[in-house]
Amino acid sequence: MTDLRSTAIHYAHQNRSRFLTELKEFCAIPSVSTDAERKADVRRAAEWLAGRLMALGVVNVQVFETAGHPVVYGERLDAGADKPTVLIYGHYDVQPAEPLELWESAPFEPTERGEHLYARGATDMKGQVIASLAAIEAILQSGRLPVNVKFMIEGEEEIGSPSLDAFMDSHRRLLACDMVLNPDSGILSADLPTITYALRGLAYFELHVFGPAHDLHSGTFGGVIHNPAQVLCELIAGMHDAHGRVTLPGFYDAVLPLSDEERAELARLPIDESHYLQESGAPALWGEAGYTAVERTGARPTLEVNGLLSGFTGEGQKTVLPAWAMAKISCRLVPNQNGEEVYGQMLRYLETHAPKTVRWSLKKMTAGPPAMSDRHSKGVQALGRAMETVWGVRPLFKREGGSVPVVAQCHKHLGVESVNTGFSMSGDNMHGPNEKVHLPTLWRGVDAFIHFFFNLAE
Amino acid sequence: MTDLRSTAIHYAHQNRSRFLTELKEFCAIPSVSTDAERKADVRRAAEWLAGRLMALGVVNVQVFETAGHPVVYGERLDAGADKPTVLIYGHYDVQPAEPLELWESAPFEPTERGEHLYARGATDMKGQVIASLAAIEAILQSGRLPVNVKFMIEGEEEIGSPSLDAFMDSHRRLLACDMVLNPDSGILSADLPTITYALRGLAYFELHVFGPAHDLHSGTFGGVIHNPAQVLCELIAGMHDAHGRVTLPGFYDAVLPLSDEERAELARLPIDESHYLQESGAPALWGEAGYTAVERTGARPTLEVNGLLSGFTGEGQKTVLPAWAMAKISCRLVPNQNGEEVYGQMLRYLETHAPKTVRWSLKKMTAGPPAMSDRHSKGVQALGRAMETVWGVRPLFKREGGSVPVVAQCHKHLGVESVNTGFSMSGDNMHGPNEKVHLPTLWRGVDAFIHFFFNLAE
Repeated sequence: MTDLRSTAIHYAHQNRSRFLTELKEFCAIPSVSTDAERKADVRRAAEWLAGRLMALGVVNVQVFETAGHPVVYGERLDAGADKPTVLIYGHYDVQPAEPLELWESAPFEPTERGEHLYARGATDMKGQVIASLAAIEAILQSGRLPVNVKFMIEGEEEIGSPSLDAFMDSHRRLLACDMVLNPDSGILSADLPTITYALRGLAYFELHVFGPAHDLHSGTFGGVIHNPAQVLCELIAGMHDAHGRVTLPGFYDAVLPLSDEERAELARLPIDESHYLQESGAPALWGEAGYTAVERTGARPTLEVNGLLSGFTGEGQKTVLPAWAMAKISCRLVPNQNGEEVYGQMLRYLETHAPKTVRWSLKKMTAGPPAMSDRHSKGVQALGRAMETVWGVRPLFKREGGSVPVVAQCHKHLGVESVNTGFSMSGDNMHGPNEKVHLPTLWRGVDAFIHFFFNLAE
Repeated sequence: MTDLRSTAIHYAHQNRSRFLTELKEFCAIPSVSTDAERKADVRRAAEWLAGRLMALGVVNVQVFETAGHPVVYGERLDAGADKPTVLIYGHYDVQPAEPLELWESAPFEPTERGEHLYARGATDMKGQVIASLAAIEAILQSGRLPVNVKFMIEGEEEIGSPSLDAFMDSHRRLLACDMVLNPDSGILSADLPTITYALRGLAYFELHVFGPAHDLHSGTFGGVIHNPAQVLCELIAGMHDAHGRVTLPGFYDAVLPLSDEERAELARLPIDESHYLQESGAPALWGEAGYTAVERTGARPTLEVNGLLSGFTGEGQKTVLPAWAMAKISCRLVPNQNGEEVYGQMLRYLETHAPKTVRWSLKKMTAGPPAMSDRHSKGVQALGRAMETVWGVRPLFKREGGSVPVVAQCHKHLGVESVNTGFSMSGDNMHGPNEKVHLPTLWRGVDAFIHFFFNLAE
């Protein structure tokens, strides 16, 4: 077994320039999923990927049609039923490249400069897709896969994966697995391998406050009518207390407290307040008392106003007493909060605090659950040891503040946890001009994936 | 003198059908000041009016050019220097008539139905202009005017009188007078003659709250950045206390308290809470504790949110932590508040309450002063007695919640108070389809004006 592992690592090192050539080919396909004019290019990327999978020995490769862009599937299940099955997730679509004038080299003409490859999609996430293929190829060319693998690579991640839920729901048996490897996350820096073990969920609401039946003249009615914009502001102001805590009744009841051990692990992350100040440009930080910035963005739930609209908002002035006011409000959720329960908490808050001088309505939008993988699971431990082998340091364990819907979908449809990692780092300009990937980190990633599969089988 | 008064009243009664013919002619001119295609019609209305003034014996009639539509001037100053001079204000422009399909008869084809004349401008305010001309004609045809009169009739009232300030500033000597008669207000009902003796002022602000340098992902930054939309809501929520009072420091310091006598006078107004509920469609009334609805809309200052804008306000959802939030906020002012001082109070409130986690800016827009005429002045008393003579009841004295800029401008440029009245009543559809004027009330108005001029000279 050790020999096969070494042979695979050797193979991967010997074939880096060819892997790079393949990455350039893949990145040259402008698979912009949001652009209707790129529809044929998106399909070409799917077919290119299916061809690569077949070429490296993956079997049962299929390009599944969906309501939108296709999903590429493939598998290699000859490790035996006693070995774990890993579903490798990826996406082959990319963000639009505009504004083109800000690119130093054309976004779809992949260009090496120094240790980086510049191209749209290089780091999000064609690089990681190629790295996972390279690892499988290296093992297959050296012998036999120690675990069973399946690939599910979609073409709609950048537009919110609208077809994935239905696809996973109708292919539960095909996709059945013991865990998901999702390399669509990031690495804190080239020297700090990172495993993301938790993602926040989302509950999104639209709150309308209705006052008079129509806009009124603020001179004639100002003083006798409760201004719905004022009422909305009062309701929103009451949603946080002076300690930055959310006041919805029962909001924290289901929140898993942080253990001392987990807090110590999170404290290893080299992210301090200056990081958030620098990235945001805000004059000062803010948040729930009693928690570090890393804890507040990853392990604590929040409530945000995403939008406000009422009355006259154009140039100049209009003395209107508006008929209604609207806010978009969302909560980031952590385990074991539940979007439906938070909707109920918001309803109870409004029932308690909205004055009788107005009417209101609360519309429930997305309710995506939070996700957390056991840091002590077989998969996370196998990847952790793999990264420590390759980088020579124990990886960092991170909770991500955002949501990755596919992680929750895999839990919902397949009943499995995801092992989330990736090699995209700050400065790689994900979604921006001059997107790039750091090639030495990507090659370390290939090695880490090889070790991961072998570790899993031990 | 009494004979002359009676003769004039008699003349007015005898000539009603001709006055009506003239009103129809006047209303048939579509002098829509906001409509560039009606520019020639607006001028035609000014010239028609100048012609009428000359025909009835007014001298020095001029059509003054302005940056916009012209101002019609005329005078009759032969009462002598020991007699008061009244400047009669009016406007000959009208609102657009759209939506045309809601009119029962064409808006610029004046049509009598029952006791009403239907036409755009009939009640706002071509009817009142004709009434003031009719009163002057009746007196001149019966003898000599007991007071000196000047006319200033503008063509831009419906678009905010943009040229009037400059016109008045550069014609202070021409317009010099002892008081203004402004018949552009309303009457509570056909049987309730009304004098409006106070108007609220306006201080209008635009408040911006700035947080991060750019919109942020609410997942990545939610929990460490103070959301500017939330901060704006908290600031606005703090601008009223639990008793509906404005909390800006010193806001009420300059407010003239209501005397028991004035409260008793205001209590005569047949406007109760059900009136405001019905007109607004709001589920309940609201306002400053300790004052009636009539007092709150007329004699007490207010603070209103006129508009709110922040972040994402379109269909659906976007998980943005917005970079900024904006509110349009205005205060209705009462004597002796001052817009500049209220601006300073708002600044102090923000300096005290805005957290250090955001930046903010406050833009000062309009600062129009409140206006109040002494209810015991010669002008108000003369009109009050005139109305009592004609209607047989003592008129109501009303404070108006809105602002009439020309009243403040007359105070500013000419140093005089305005006597505000009018014959436009609820149901006359001012600014709406099927605008009309109640002719019996208008004819009473002509009589009241005749008595007013004679009363003034006594």
